[in-house]
Amino acid sequence: MIKAAVVGATGYAGAELVRILAGHPGVDLTMITSRQYAGERLDAVYPALAGQVNLVCEAYDPAKLGAAADVIFMALPHKLPMAFVPDLLAQGVKIVDLSADFRFQDIAAYESAYQPHSAGELLKESVYGLCEVYAEQIKAARLIGNPGCYPTSVLLPLVPLLKAGWLDPATLIADSKSGVSGAGRPLSLATHFCEVHESFKAYKVAQHRHNPEMNEVLSDAVRAAVHITFVPHLVPMSRGMQTTVYANLKREASPDDIRTCLETFYNDRPFIRLRPDGQPPDSAHVRGSNFCDIGFRLDTAAKRLILLSAIDNLVKGAAGQAVQNMNLMFGLDETAGLLPVPYPI
Amino acid sequence: MIKAAVVGATGYAGAELVRILAGHPGVDLTMITSRQYAGERLDAVYPALAGQVNLVCEAYDPAKLGAAADVIFMALPHKLPMAFVPDLLAQGVKIVDLSADFRFQDIAAYESAYQPHSAGELLKESVYGLCEVYAEQIKAARLIGNPGCYPTSVLLPLVPLLKAGWLDPATLIADSKSGVSGAGRPLSLATHFCEVHESFKAYKVAQHRHNPEMNEVLSDAVRAAVHITFVPHLVPMSRGMQTTVYANLKREASPDDIRTCLETFYNDRPFIRLRPDGQPPDSAHVRGSNFCDIGFRLDTAAKRLILLSAIDNLVKGAAGQAVQNMNLMFGLDETAGLLPVPYPI
Amino acid sequence: MIKAAVVGATGYAGAELVRILAGHPGVDLTMITSRQYAGERLDAVYPALAGQVNLVCEAYDPAKLGAAADVIFMALPHKLPMAFVPDLLAQGVKIVDLSADFRFQDIAAYESAYQPHSAGELLKESVYGLCEVYAEQIKAARLIGNPGCYPTSVLLPLVPLLKAGWLDPATLIADSKSGVSGAGRPLSLATHFCEVHESFKAYKVAQHRHNPEMNEVLSDAVRAAVHITFVPHLVPMSRGMQTTVYANLKREASPDDIRTCLETFYNDRPFIRLRPDGQPPDSAHVRGSNFCDIGFRLDTAAKRLILLSAIDNLVKGAAGQAVQNMNLMFGLDETAGLLPVPYPI
Amino acid sequence: MIKAAVVGATGYAGAELVRILAGHPGVDLTMITSRQYAGERLDAVYPALAGQVNLVCEAYDPAKLGAAADVIFMALPHKLPMAFVPDLLAQGVKIVDLSADFRFQDIAAYESAYQPHSAGELLKESVYGLCEVYAEQIKAARLIGNPGCYPTSVLLPLVPLLKAGWLDPATLIADSKSGVSGAGRPLSLATHFCEVHESFKAYKVAQHRHNPEMNEVLSDAVRAAVHITFVPHLVPMSRGMQTTVYANLKREASPDDIRTCLETFYNDRPFIRLRPDGQPPDSAHVRGSNFCDIGFRLDTAAKRLILLSAIDNLVKGAAGQAVQNMNLMFGLDETAGLLPVPYPI
Repeated sequence: MIKAAVVGATGYAGAELVRILAGHPGVDLTMITSRQYAGERLDAVYPALAGQVNLVCEAYDPAKLGAAADVIFMALPHKLPMAFVPDLLAQGVKIVDLSADFRFQDIAAYESAYQPHSAGELLKESVYGLCEVYAEQIKAARLIGNPGCYPTSVLLPLVPLLKAGWLDPATLIADSKSGVSGAGRPLSLATHFCEVHESFKAYKVAQHRHNPEMNEVLSDAVRAAVHITFVPHLVPMSRGMQTTVYANLKREASPDDIRTCLETFYNDRPFIRLRPDGQPPDSAHVRGSNFCDIGFRLDTAAKRLILLSAIDNLVKGAAGQAVQNMNLMFGLDETAGLLPVPYPI
Repeated sequence: MIKAAVVGATGYAGAELVRILAGHPGVDLTMITSRQYAGERLDAVYPALAGQVNLVCEAYDPAKLGAAADVIFMALPHKLPMAFVPDLLAQGVKIVDLSADFRFQDIAAYESAYQPHSAGELLKESVYGLCEVYAEQIKAARLIGNPGCYPTSVLLPLVPLLKAGWLDPATLIADSKSGVSGAGRPLSLATHFCEVHESFKAYKVAQHRHNPEMNEVLSDAVRAAVHITFVPHLVPMSRGMQTTVYANLKREASPDDIRTCLETFYNDRPFIRLRPDGQPPDSAHVRGSNFCDIGFRLDTAAKRLILLSAIDNLVKGAAGQAVQNMNLMFGLDETAGLLPVPYPI
Repeated sequence: MIKAAVVGATGYAGAELVRILAGHPGVDLTMITSRQYAGERLDAVYPALAGQVNLVCEAYDPAKLGAAADVIFMALPHKLPMAFVPDLLAQGVKIVDLSADFRFQDIAAYESAYQPHSAGELLKESVYGLCEVYAEQIKAARLIGNPGCYPTSVLLPLVPLLKAGWLDPATLIADSKSGVSGAGRPLSLATHFCEVHESFKAYKVAQHRHNPEMNEVLSDAVRAAVHITFVPHLVPMSRGMQTTVYANLKREASPDDIRTCLETFYNDRPFIRLRPDGQPPDSAHVRGSNFCDIGFRLDTAAKRLILLSAIDNLVKGAAGQAVQNMNLMFGLDETAGLLPVPYPI
Repeated sequence: MIKAAVVGATGYAGAELVRILAGHPGVDLTMITSRQYAGERLDAVYPALAGQVNLVCEAYDPAKLGAAADVIFMALPHKLPMAFVPDLLAQGVKIVDLSADFRFQDIAAYESAYQPHSAGELLKESVYGLCEVYAEQIKAARLIGNPGCYPTSVLLPLVPLLKAGWLDPATLIADSKSGVSGAGRPLSLATHFCEVHESFKAYKVAQHRHNPEMNEVLSDAVRAAVHITFVPHLVPMSRGMQTTVYANLKREASPDDIRTCLETFYNDRPFIRLRPDGQPPDSAHVRGSNFCDIGFRLDTAAKRLILLSAIDNLVKGAAGQAVQNMNLMFGLDETAGLLPVPYPI
C-alpha cells in the first residue's frame, strides 16, 4: 500500500482528494493537514464523509509528513507550495502539487502571472501532470505540477489536433464555463448564493492566470510560440466545466479526419471519451468522475473546427487527475481508485 | 457472484440501480430491460455511464430473466409488477420490487390508494423492505416491497421512539421535502425546469399515496391504528429528501433520553448516522449515499419532539435500499456495494 | 410627493426598498445611506439598477436625513436602529424600521431574544406593521416595527382562524422554508453557493429569533399566552418563502368554514390571494410581488387543519410590506407603487 | 389608448407579453388567445398574474382579433404566423410577429432553415425589428419580424463595430449561453429539471436556425456576405442570455476606439448600457428588463476584440423588444411600459 498525505484537506480540492484516496484500493491515507481546522475531525467539516473517513486534521508538519507518506498531495493556494516543497522532496517523498507553482517550465511566465518564484530551480525537473499528454515524463517524476482545471479542459481536445497539424495556431480561442466550486471554499461576494444563482457572466476576460499556462503547453505542442484567446465564465452550478474551442483549419478536413486524429492520439487512454456525432459533451455526464468527454463539429462555411469538452473541475480538473498522476508515478493501474460508477443523473 | 437483473433500467431509479450494481463486488449484472429503449445501449440513454456499463437494454422477457438472474429488481410504475411478479417467482428468483405493489400487508389499504390488486395473495409473504426495522424478515424473504422514499425518511427517525413509547401517536405530523428526481423521468409540467427552479411548494397535501404506507408501518410499531398527517413539498434540486417530524411527548424526556433511544435502536446499523446536537441533517450530506442522517430537538415549551432526517431519495429512498435488501436476502455484508465515499460537496 | 430616505440601502432589503420606491408614483426618493459604500453610486453595487436609479450612497447623517425625508426606512441590522431612531423621530419624520428593534410590545421578550433595549420607551407607541392585521394602528403611527419575513408568512394564514376560534392554540406548528436572500448580503459559509446548492436543511430548529415575535402576535390574537413550534429551513433558491402551518381544530370544520373565515377577514385586502382548492401556494407565484398567497386543507382523519402560505421574503416579507406601511401611514392607496405585474415565470 | 391583442398568450413569450402590456400606460389589452387553454382564465395557467390580469383565453378568431385590436402580437411557433398574418393585415391591424416567419428578407435563407414560405410576398415589406438598428424602418412598418433572442444578443454588440469597419467579417464567432426558458413551455427531456440542473452543454453546434438570421443582418451591415460561427449553450437557470463574440481587428484599435464607436452608435438609445471596463455584463443584471448590457475587452496579443452582451431572453430577446417595436410603430415613447425597476438581485 502506498502511504499518502493531503496537505490542505479542508479546501474543496483537498476534500475531493480525501474522497478519492479513501476509496483507493492501493492507498493508505495516513495524514491530512489543515491550518484552519487543525485538531478537528474532517467529517465535522464535511459531514458527508461521516462514517467513512475517520481522520483528524493536523497542523502542517514537514517532518511528520515525510515520515507518514510516500506521496504528498499539496492542495494549497499558490505561493505556499513553493515554500514547502523543497523540504518535503528532501525527505524522499513524491509530490503532486495542485497549485500553479510547479506547472510552468518558464519561470518568467510564472512570475508574470503570479509572483517571484522561490524554488525556481525545481521547475526544470517538475513535470506538467496532464496525464494523457505527458504520461512518460510523469512516470519518471518525483514532482508534478497538476494542471489547472481550465487548461485541462482546453488542452485535451486541442493538443492532438495541433500536433497533427490540422489547426492554425494563430486562430485559437477557448470559451470556458465553470461551476462555482472552481472558486473554492473561501468566502467572496462572487460565490455568494444570491449573486450567482440565476446569473451567467464572463470574468477575467482574456486576463485569467490559466492563460499563460495554456500558452506554454500549446507552444510545446507545436514547437512555436502560441497565444490562445481565453475567456472563462461562471455557471450557476456547483461542479462541472465545459469548454468550447474555436480554431481555423490549416487544410481541408472531414469529420472522419478529426475523429481519427483524436481516436488515434487517445487510443488506449481510459479517461477520454469521444462523444457520438451531434451529441456535444455535457458537464452532467462527467460529474464526480475523472472522464473528459470530447466532441467536435466542423463549421465548413467558415473552415473552422469547433471542439467541445466537459470535465468535473474538481476531479479531472483537480483531485482526480492528481490521483491519476500518482497512479502513473507509482506504476499502478492508471484508473486505480478512479472508477466508481458516476451518478446517471 | 449473484446474478442480478434490472427491469425498467432507464427510469431514474432503474439507472441508479445499475450504477450501484455495476460497482457491487458480489454481483454480476446480467440483464437490463426497458420498454422504451429496447435494443439500445444504456449509455446512449445515460452517457454518464459510458466506459463503465456496456449493457444493452432488452425487452421484458420473463423466461430470459428467470434464466439470467438470481435476483430481479423491478423498477417499474406500480400495477405492472403485480402482473409480472408471480411468474418470475415461479422460476425461483428472488425479487425486490421498487413499486408500491408489494409494500402493503393490508390489501384494502393498497387498493384504496392505488387500484385493485391482482396478486393479493402474495402480500402475505412479501416483506416491507425497511432494512433497519425488518431485517430478520427480509433475510428470509423471497419478495420485498421496497419502501417509498417519503416513508423511509419518515419512519426511520420515528419508529424507534414510537416503539419505546415516548411519543403520542395521535399527534404525528411529517413535513417532507423532496428533490425533483422523485418524480422520475416522465415528462410533466410539474418537472419542467422553469416551473420548478426558484419555486418551492407543497403538493398532494394530506393526500399523497405514501401516507397509507406510513400509517401501516406506524400502526405496526405501536400495535394500534395510527394516522400521520403528511405534507410533501418539492425542492428545486435534483436529489435529496429532508423530513421534519413533529410529535407530542407522552412523558417528559431529555435530549439524552431521545438520543439514547435512537442509538440503542440503531446501535449496529451502518447506514444510520445521528447528527450532533444543533446540527440538523442536510440533504447534501447524503447525496449519492445510502445513509440516513437523523437529528432532533425538543421544543420543551410545547412538550414536543422535532425529528429531522435526510436521505438521498434515489439511494436510501429507492435503489440503495433495494440493494441493501438484496444484501440481507443473500447473506452478504449489508453494506456491500453501497460504500463508495460520497462527494464532500 | 412624499420625500423618502433609505438607511442601509446596499443590503438586500435596502436595495429592494430602492427598487420599489424608485417606481412609486407618490414618492421622491431623496437620500440613501450605506456605511460600506458611502460615496459610491448605488448602481455600481447593484448594476441591475443602472439607467434607472442615479443615487449616490451617503454616510449616515441624522440631521441631513431629517431635512431630506418625510419618512425614513431603516434597513439595518437590529441594535443600530434603537440607537438612531429617537433622534430621527425628534426631527418629525416617520419611520419604518425593518429590524426587530421595534417589533415587540414586551421588552422582556425582545431582550431575551436579542439584547438590552436602549429605547424601550418607544415600544409603547411603535406599531407592529402587519398591514392586514393592524391597519388602523398603522395609519396613526409614526414608528413601525416592520414584521420579520417568517412571522409574516406564519401569521397571515393563522391569525384569522385563531381569532375566530377554530384552532386549538396549544397545537400550533409552523414549518417554514426560505430562499437564501433571507440571510442577506453578508458573507458566510451558510450562504456560499456550493454549500447551499443541491442542499436542503433545517436550521435554528425551535430556536429562531422570529419565534418569540410570532408568539407575541399570536397571543394578542387569542388574548392568552401562545407558543408556536417553529422550524425554519433553507431552500436552494434566491427569493421566496413558503410556510406550512399545522393546527388541531377546536370544533368540526368544513372546507367552506375555513374559506369563509379567511375570505371574511381579508375581504377587502388587495395583497391576500386565496388559492383554489387543491392548488397550494407556490413561492414562484409571488416572486417580486407583495402578494401573500394562502391555501389550506383539512386532514379530517386527524381533525387537523393545514394552512399554506407563500410570500417573497424580500417584498411582503420586508421591503414591500414596509412600503405598504408607508402607504397606510400617509393615507395613500395601500397598493401604490406595489403593483408592477410580476413575472409569469 | 392602443388596443392590443396577444395570440398565443400561454407560452412563455406570450405570458411575458401579457405581463408587459398589462402594465403599459398606453395600451388596453383587449384580447388574448390560446389554443390549449381557450375558455380558461390566464391566471389559472399563470397564477403569478392573479389579482392583476383578469383576461380569459379565447380561441383564435381573426375577425374578432381584427375588431378588437390596433396591434396584434403573434407569439406562436413559426409556420402558423405565415398562415394567419395576411388575413390579419387585411383588416388594417399592425403586427409584431415573434416567430421567425417574417424575420428574413431572403426567402431562400428562410426556407433552407425552416420550411416553404406561404406568404413570401410579405417579406418585402416586413421589417426586422432590431430596434436599435432599424428604428426608422420600424416606425413606418405594419409588419415586424421580431428578432430571435440569440440574434439580438449577438447583433447589438457587433453591428456598430462592423459598420464602422473595425472588424474582419471573416473571423466572427459567437458563443452564446441561454437560460432554459428560451426553449419555451413545451415538454421535452431537454428541459426536464433533472436533465438540466447541474448541467452545462452546447447544443445544435453550428447548426442553429438563428445562424442564418444573424448572417443576413450582419451581411446587411457590411454590404457583403458574412457567415458567423455560432454555438449556443444551455445554462441551468430560467431567464437570461449571455453572449461572447470574438472577432479579429482589421486595424489597430484602443479600448477608447471601441468604446467611442459603441457610444456613438447607441448614443441616445435607452436600452443599451455599456459596462465599465473590467466588469463584464451579467445576465442577472438584466433579468426582467429590456436592457442589453454590453462590455468588451481587447486581447491585444491576438489582435482580437472580445464583445460581451447580456439580455433577458424573454424581454429584450422576445416580449420586451416586441413592445419596444410597438412603441416605435405607434409613435409612443420608446420606453413606454418597459421601465419598471428591475430586481436588484
